Amino acid sequence: MKTCLKSLAAGLLLGASLAAAAGPLPSWNQDSAPRKALVAFVEKVTQEGSTDFVPPAERIAVFDNDGCLWSEQPFYFQAFYIFDRIKALAPQHPEWATEEPFASVLKGDVKSALAGGEHGLLAMAAATHAGLTSEEFSASVNDWLATAKHPVTDKAYTDMVYQPMLELLDYLRANGFKTFIVSGGGIDFMRPWAERIYGIPPEQIVGSSLKAAYEVRDGKPVIVKLPELNFIDDKAGKPVGIHQHIGRRPIFAAGNSDGDFQMLEWTTSGEGARFGLLVHHTDAEREFAYDRESPVGKLNKGLDEAPRRGWSVIDMKNDWKTIFP
Amino acid sequence: MKTCLKSLAAGLLLGASLAAAAGPLPSWNQDSAPRKALVAFVEKVTQEGSTDFVPPAERIAVFDNDGCLWSEQPFYFQAFYIFDRIKALAPQHPEWATEEPFASVLKGDVKSALAGGEHGLLAMAAATHAGLTSEEFSASVNDWLATAKHPVTDKAYTDMVYQPMLELLDYLRANGFKTFIVSGGGIDFMRPWAERIYGIPPEQIVGSSLKAAYEVRDGKPVIVKLPELNFIDDKAGKPVGIHQHIGRRPIFAAGNSDGDFQMLEWTTSGEGARFGLLVHHTDAEREFAYDRESPVGKLNKGLDEAPRRGWSVIDMKNDWKTIFP
Repeated sequence: MKTCLKSLAAGLLLGASLAAAAGPLPSWNQDSAPRKALVAFVEKVTQEGSTDFVPPAERIAVFDNDGCLWSEQPFYFQAFYIFDRIKALAPQHPEWATEEPFASVLKGDVKSALAGGEHGLLAMAAATHAGLTSEEFSASVNDWLATAKHPVTDKAYTDMVYQPMLELLDYLRANGFKTFIVSGGGIDFMRPWAERIYGIPPEQIVGSSLKAAYEVRDGKPVIVKLPELNFIDDKAGKPVGIHQHIGRRPIFAAGNSDGDFQMLEWTTSGEGARFGLLVHHTDAEREFAYDRESPVGKLNKGLDEAPRRGWSVIDMKNDWKTIFP
Repeated sequence: MKTCLKSLAAGLLLGASLAAAAGPLPSWNQDSAPRKALVAFVEKVTQEGSTDFVPPAERIAVFDNDGCLWSEQPFYFQAFYIFDRIKALAPQHPEWATEEPFASVLKGDVKSALAGGEHGLLAMAAATHAGLTSEEFSASVNDWLATAKHPVTDKAYTDMVYQPMLELLDYLRANGFKTFIVSGGGIDFMRPWAERIYGIPPEQIVGSSLKAAYEVRDGKPVIVKLPELNFIDDKAGKPVGIHQHIGRRPIFAAGNSDGDFQMLEWTTSGEGARFGLLVHHTDAEREFAYDRESPVGKLNKGLDEAPRRGWSVIDMKNDWKTIFP
């Protein structure tokens, strides 16, 4: 039996070294600086006996979603969902014909509809999501994703995820990390599909939310969404959301905009080995190019501060061989 | 190699069947009805091909803490912590000498101090926890637990956990369940020690909370507790807390008081195999005996409705061979 185990172990080791030869993160340019830094980080925190070793339970990795795991241009995909909900519900809301931002949505004037920024979007979310049960809302999101197409690429939204980031999620999990989403997007908007697309289960998703209530309707217990804001998981809200949901400081954080600044700051200012990663959208041909002046996904302070904080910045055009799967 | 694998597999199977012969849940009376029901439930939801099979990702099990995983008499252990904080902070708060409920705490009049119920306790928590950083608060809880003793048993509080429930947590996890705490107690009060004592990591704990803020103090990022209530995770709040944190309906819920009623109702009204479990405190000699009239951990509606809802009720005196480890 002992010999048996040895030969089995040798076989497993052989398999592992073959995989290592092919290399993790195959869609990344193999010599790119962020890829090298990622591999060096994962190797040092997983090497038992190393001064940088981190026990598996503490290998918490957090990822922004919009612009970090999937695209966010010309504006957040959840906004398209909300606009479609507004159009579907308009017959029941004649007052929306003159009430902003609904009137602009119904006229197809996206720019005016989004003039209210994040808070305007939240007001639209509250107006169109409230009253739905948790199960009705999940079904509505899944139904929409099954048919909706992106206005520029004509792809399904869930096909606009970044292949190199999917590989990074897998690579971290294969090395004992627990991967979380920490997004300004709606927590209940992401949960119905994130497990299928990213391998991230609902309980590892942190996001913005409306309040909810528990009630028994006609003998059937339900969770109902209320038209009242619960939490905005953006900027300084991200470390707070991480604290309330996860309860410990991550050792790895990835984002792409100044809305992720505090999350990266909180993550990388802890003791021991830490990793901060920014996705810089530099590829106008294969995706979109934007940064310091963009109304969606503005990345200004992060670009300025990344070097002195030791954060890695991905140049999508040059560091990624593939963008979408 | 093939023969090798076969003999290895046979060895593993032998090990597994020996463990099965010893039986799961050794501190439970082997013939007790709740133990039999638990084993039958776990076997059917884990048997692939069975109509009751539940994929591992959906095997979510939630547990109340006070009175379910550890004792809660003569009152919630967190209240003892809060009282000790009030005594420690009193020199900085001369106004507490006359201000209720602080004055009663300082006079040692526990009954009056607790007259305000849950809300009074939360006010005391807010007054004594606010301003602490998340790290200072964790350290304060751990320091307190290291020396504090229960007034009746003289045990450390973390030694007053229920051995049969520790075995149940292990048994469920060994069968692919993810175990969560969903407690009316403070989320940040449980997190510093629940992983060590229960094997439940911080990210799988749901509880009541104060609001928090992120700030950079003297160049060092911190999360600071605010003197403002964020969420009460009790009664109808429990299914809401489950929804916001976990994002899917559990298939297993354990509690011990009417504060857990809605959590069990929400859990067991889903489709497919479900399990509701109530711990009934019937053992005045080895622990405490209380139910319908108890100011702490009142169990009245639950006892009435358990039979028709198919919930199992543990009779601590007769079903458990051991109470504390």
